Amino acid sequence: MDLRKLLKPRTIAIVGASERAGFGGDTTRNYLKFSRNLDRLYLVNPKHDTLFGRRAYRSLSEIEGEIDLVILCTPQKTILPLLEEAAEKGCGGAVVFASGYSETGPEGKILQEELVRKADSLGIAVMGPNCAGFANFIDGIFAFAFLVEERDRRGNIGMISQSGQIVLGGLDSPNMGFSHVISSGNSCNVKVEDYLDFLVDDEDTKVVAAYIEGITKPEKLISAFAKAAEKKKPIVVLKTGRSGKSRELAASHTGSLSGADKVVRAVFRRYGVIEAADLEELMGLAAAFSWLAELPRGERCVFMNVSGGEAGVMADLTEDYGITLAEMEQETKDALQTLVPDYGSVNNPFDMTAGIGYNTPVMVQAMEMISADPNVDAIVVAYTITPEIWDDTITHMVEAVSIAREKEGLKPVFWIPLIEHTRHLESAETLKKSGTPLLPTGKYGCAALKKILDYAVWKFQPMEPALPEKKHGSSHALSEYESLNYLSSHGVPIPPQAVAATEEEAARIGGELGYPLSVKIHSRDIQHKSDVGGVKLNIKNQEELITAFHTVMENCRKNAPDAELEGVLLKPMLKAGTEMIIGVNNDKDFGPMIMIGMGGVFVELFKDVQLAPAPLDFQQAEEMIKRLVSYPLLSGYRGRPVCDKKALADLLVKISRMAAEGRDTIKELDINPVFVTEEGAEIADALLVLYDNEVSE
Amino acid sequence: MDLRKLLKPRTIAIVGASERAGFGGDTTRNYLKFSRNLDRLYLVNPKHDTLFGRRAYRSLSEIEGEIDLVILCTPQKTILPLLEEAAEKGCGGAVVFASGYSETGPEGKILQEELVRKADSLGIAVMGPNCAGFANFIDGIFAFAFLVEERDRRGNIGMISQSGQIVLGGLDSPNMGFSHVISSGNSCNVKVEDYLDFLVDDEDTKVVAAYIEGITKPEKLISAFAKAAEKKKPIVVLKTGRSGKSRELAASHTGSLSGADKVVRAVFRRYGVIEAADLEELMGLAAAFSWLAELPRGERCVFMNVSGGEAGVMADLTEDYGITLAEMEQETKDALQTLVPDYGSVNNPFDMTAGIGYNTPVMVQAMEMISADPNVDAIVVAYTITPEIWDDTITHMVEAVSIAREKEGLKPVFWIPLIEHTRHLESAETLKKSGTPLLPTGKYGCAALKKILDYAVWKFQPMEPALPEKKHGSSHALSEYESLNYLSSHGVPIPPQAVAATEEEAARIGGELGYPLSVKIHSRDIQHKSDVGGVKLNIKNQEELITAFHTVMENCRKNAPDAELEGVLLKPMLKAGTEMIIGVNNDKDFGPMIMIGMGGVFVELFKDVQLAPAPLDFQQAEEMIKRLVSYPLLSGYRGRPVCDKKALADLLVKISRMAAEGRDTIKELDINPVFVTEEGAEIADALLVLYDNEVSE
Repeated sequence: MDLRKLLKPRTIAIVGASERAGFGGDTTRNYLKFSRNLDRLYLVNPKHDTLFGRRAYRSLSEIEGEIDLVILCTPQKTILPLLEEAAEKGCGGAVVFASGYSETGPEGKILQEELVRKADSLGIAVMGPNCAGFANFIDGIFAFAFLVEERDRRGNIGMISQSGQIVLGGLDSPNMGFSHVISSGNSCNVKVEDYLDFLVDDEDTKVVAAYIEGITKPEKLISAFAKAAEKKKPIVVLKTGRSGKSRELAASHTGSLSGADKVVRAVFRRYGVIEAADLEELMGLAAAFSWLAELPRGERCVFMNVSGGEAGVMADLTEDYGITLAEMEQETKDALQTLVPDYGSVNNPFDMTAGIGYNTPVMVQAMEMISADPNVDAIVVAYTITPEIWDDTITHMVEAVSIAREKEGLKPVFWIPLIEHTRHLESAETLKKSGTPLLPTGKYGCAALKKILDYAVWKFQPMEPALPEKKHGSSHALSEYESLNYLSSHGVPIPPQAVAATEEEAARIGGELGYPLSVKIHSRDIQHKSDVGGVKLNIKNQEELITAFHTVMENCRKNAPDAELEGVLLKPMLKAGTEMIIGVNNDKDFGPMIMIGMGGVFVELFKDVQLAPAPLDFQQAEEMIKRLVSYPLLSGYRGRPVCDKKALADLLVKISRMAAEGRDTIKELDINPVFVTEEGAEIADALLVLYDNEVSE
Repeated sequence: MDLRKLLKPRTIAIVGASERAGFGGDTTRNYLKFSRNLDRLYLVNPKHDTLFGRRAYRSLSEIEGEIDLVILCTPQKTILPLLEEAAEKGCGGAVVFASGYSETGPEGKILQEELVRKADSLGIAVMGPNCAGFANFIDGIFAFAFLVEERDRRGNIGMISQSGQIVLGGLDSPNMGFSHVISSGNSCNVKVEDYLDFLVDDEDTKVVAAYIEGITKPEKLISAFAKAAEKKKPIVVLKTGRSGKSRELAASHTGSLSGADKVVRAVFRRYGVIEAADLEELMGLAAAFSWLAELPRGERCVFMNVSGGEAGVMADLTEDYGITLAEMEQETKDALQTLVPDYGSVNNPFDMTAGIGYNTPVMVQAMEMISADPNVDAIVVAYTITPEIWDDTITHMVEAVSIAREKEGLKPVFWIPLIEHTRHLESAETLKKSGTPLLPTGKYGCAALKKILDYAVWKFQPMEPALPEKKHGSSHALSEYESLNYLSSHGVPIPPQAVAATEEEAARIGGELGYPLSVKIHSRDIQHKSDVGGVKLNIKNQEELITAFHTVMENCRKNAPDAELEGVLLKPMLKAGTEMIIGVNNDKDFGPMIMIGMGGVFVELFKDVQLAPAPLDFQQAEEMIKRLVSYPLLSGYRGRPVCDKKALADLLVKISRMAAEGRDTIKELDINPVFVTEEGAEIADALLVLYDNEVSE
């Protein structure tokens, strides 16, 4: 759907415009105060001839000419007829503030479906319902219902939020300038994903900040993410739903069903989408990318402080957040040492002392020296900026940063205050002009910096996503033999296996496979083979094999009298190695997700697993394995064998390709264990669950 | 040393007083601006007759009468003669701003030692050197060198910091009111611990906030902590030294040697000391305790929001930080439901909607309903407070909290903003007056709230600390046999064991102990018994025992020809169980620390260990074991045996008592493994290292 009439309208009508408080009055007042080109605005109210000294229209049809956008400040019941009236005026966009839709339960859901049908049939893109509107600062349109301070907010952050209150939070943040802000509300026929796509394309938008409760158009989301990744336009997302409580709340707030949190995070990681943990981080990251002159080329930072104590505090925080402190060249250190008094020493964090911190030209010199060091990618100045300046050091340091930033080739600079304050506005403005982000305080600042540095060095590896192409219903599990055969016939190597229905077949297969062997009952009707005496391991010769064959068959006849026994599954015993688990779970939105972890309590108790969307390339597979906390256990830790991690990664790639191709076939796959030894990685057992609606190829 | 003349002086002289910028000028200007009773102040400067229109004295001796405190704004070289002159005026306290002491290296260290000797001999308590001074807001004395905004800062927070800049950060924070602030600098003859003790005793101080780089008087620290714990006066500490970098910096900043971080944290935990991760948290926690009317009786919170989106954000944060969301009674929920519009639903976090949030009396009613619920211990209002108020909701909600707090028996209320702002000062003041802490933003706020709730429900279990009584030098390791015997003779149960020097002895002991047995070489000269073939396990009868005896002895004769072999150690094979590790490490400051973890990679890779000062009582031992992430592995996890955790805790208690009694004997103890089974916990191996200067009792 074309969003231009909604987001970049030429003519606008506010229906329910008013001089009284409430959605109608507040929206009108805001519009008149903050918008440009007021001659393209029409106020509509059946009870007034004038409002705010302007002509008011009794109805939309009374207006001459076309109306691109209607802003409906009226109750739920009036919406459908108004949309019809608007459509006759050529309207292509509507903002619907009214609530009483899907956020209220089944009845509201029906009303919302009606609204979508009507809007779709009229070709009107609807923002809302249950939203707070939007502002387009580029074209000067302020169609937002909450009152805000009078201030110039034009900038390059594009913000979308399912919560109007959260947009308000952004508008109230002094450090943020916007291209667009959009409160999408219940997102009826225009979804969060559509706005996201619009902002990724929008040339006035440098960074996208989004608050998302639920995802409904995964394909659109992925394509917008991929476009942004290609351009390296940062997207910062605050996605609720980490906790069960917040998933419940999202359902009752905007009727959203929140996607499985871990899956969404894995998707974010794939596309370099930066996740914020809360609102402060969302705003801080958006402002930082908005201000930042250019991304650092690497992640090695030098911190500059004017207090040994504060330098120590920052040192601890850099370690907590995994920020790399640059090792400066001795030459740089020697040069810096000439700038500090005798008692000062050149460390990183670097306590500049009063010698540098109180002296603008000397600090500029120090910044140039640090920037010139080949081991340094960015400079971080850490000092608190108070609302009013009593401490001259702030002025000196802000000035120094501003001057240094004008020097040819100076590397990126960030500023992190140590204590929370709304920062002295002029100083903030000076830093902003110099392309130096003023990050939030301490822990927030370091978390944001780490995310920015990670993003700066991140490289997008485009992979065709494997989104599901249809809805799936019921499913059925395969036997071990069938599961392994399926893997084998879809490009995943498995150890040899065969089924023997008789003693003679068993003996022959035993001779072919070689000993030692495992013997397991083969029956679709028996899930837990050990429980019915259906497993014998480590069979060393033909004689043992024949005994095992009969024992297993007899046990199962006795213990599972109703099961149809097809024979026994014979497999050579694998060389025991480090046990890994590989799994596939087909997410209804994002398709097959592949999981890896070390077997046993590492996965279960320590939650040491990695998840990524299928398919994977070899490098992605290797990185997943390396991110495991238990990774050293594969690498010769404390005398353990050095496992063949390349074979494991290779197996992971093949499984991921099979999963991607089987996006509409495979529901779940549980490979447990994979034995990784010094010479390879072998699948010892697998359980595959397929959808019943499997396509016959 | 008596600190009264230093911190609560009746007469004060500023030496080096001046009208120019710099330590002398800034201190004088500050003093004149912020202090009361200026007639007890004397300004001293050899070059002036008047300063700021007041009489100036050429020297201290020119002043008539006694001087309690001298504030020395002069360089390092002048300090010793000035102290002598001051002593003649009856001076008992001095503030020394000068730097050039232990923070600069070996030479400065000598100068500082001289300063300490001189001050001690004159009976003068010195603040500094290399400090920024102090302020006593109770008695109206402002002896601080950095310029600050004019504002009333009197309150009940007592703050100590080894960094002057960090004191400045506190003074600049609008939410904080102080009894005392102290910049202790290099802490020469008055240590951080002495100030801490002073503030714990001080009745004007409700909460102590401390920035600490290094600990030098552990005994004083512990006794101050214990006193505070008994009174339940909260102490919030920011201790740098989590990272190697910050330990380096502390050494060059104030010459502090930072204590081992994990040990210090274990000590904090024992005494309920609240640790802050950075400055913002330090200030936020101090302000919160300062404002809080009373501690909650439990940790179950109800969050109140006015936005579904923000409620979702807070829900995720409560889960991230482990904050308990109260389950309200159905009756309470039904009552609240009558206050919200149809589309609202009563959750926790509770999205009050405009129906409550915009309506002061209704919000008061809602707060009373929530507070009356027996399952609720505290209410948390989450809403951003901007510097200027455009959003009336803030006014309504602040007013509602203030009115509700006046109701008889209303439970404690906290306020957490979602985005960082210096808060609208009047609103903050209203909340403060109502005893409602205005916590920092989002993540900081939740981290602080969790720490306050933990502190509120924490109960101090007084235990006699086992601080070392002397300095320890070299040490020696015992053999396994000797180590186990030592344990046994100090109250720690061990399995039977015996040494056999001959085949005959072995046979006899074998008969006594019973089979199966282990046979290990017994020699002080052999540390790694397996490496030289000195171990045979699972010996089933006398015949095998005699063979094993000879094999072990021969292997060792061959592989360790220089070792003196005393025979073999015989022990019954223990029933294998879950393997735990218990260790003791004797910290030079805080004495024996006891450690427990699950054997193998759980300790090494996942760092899943717990540490506490010895001794432990049974409950403390149980809590340590329960805090392990691997704890479920002792409790029947996935079909594992349910281990005898009481036996393990009992063993831990006995080892901790032995360690506490052996504070001047035992250097290290490594018990690895302890086998924990369904019926008990048994020590399988131990290695003890004793100090050479062991006291012969």
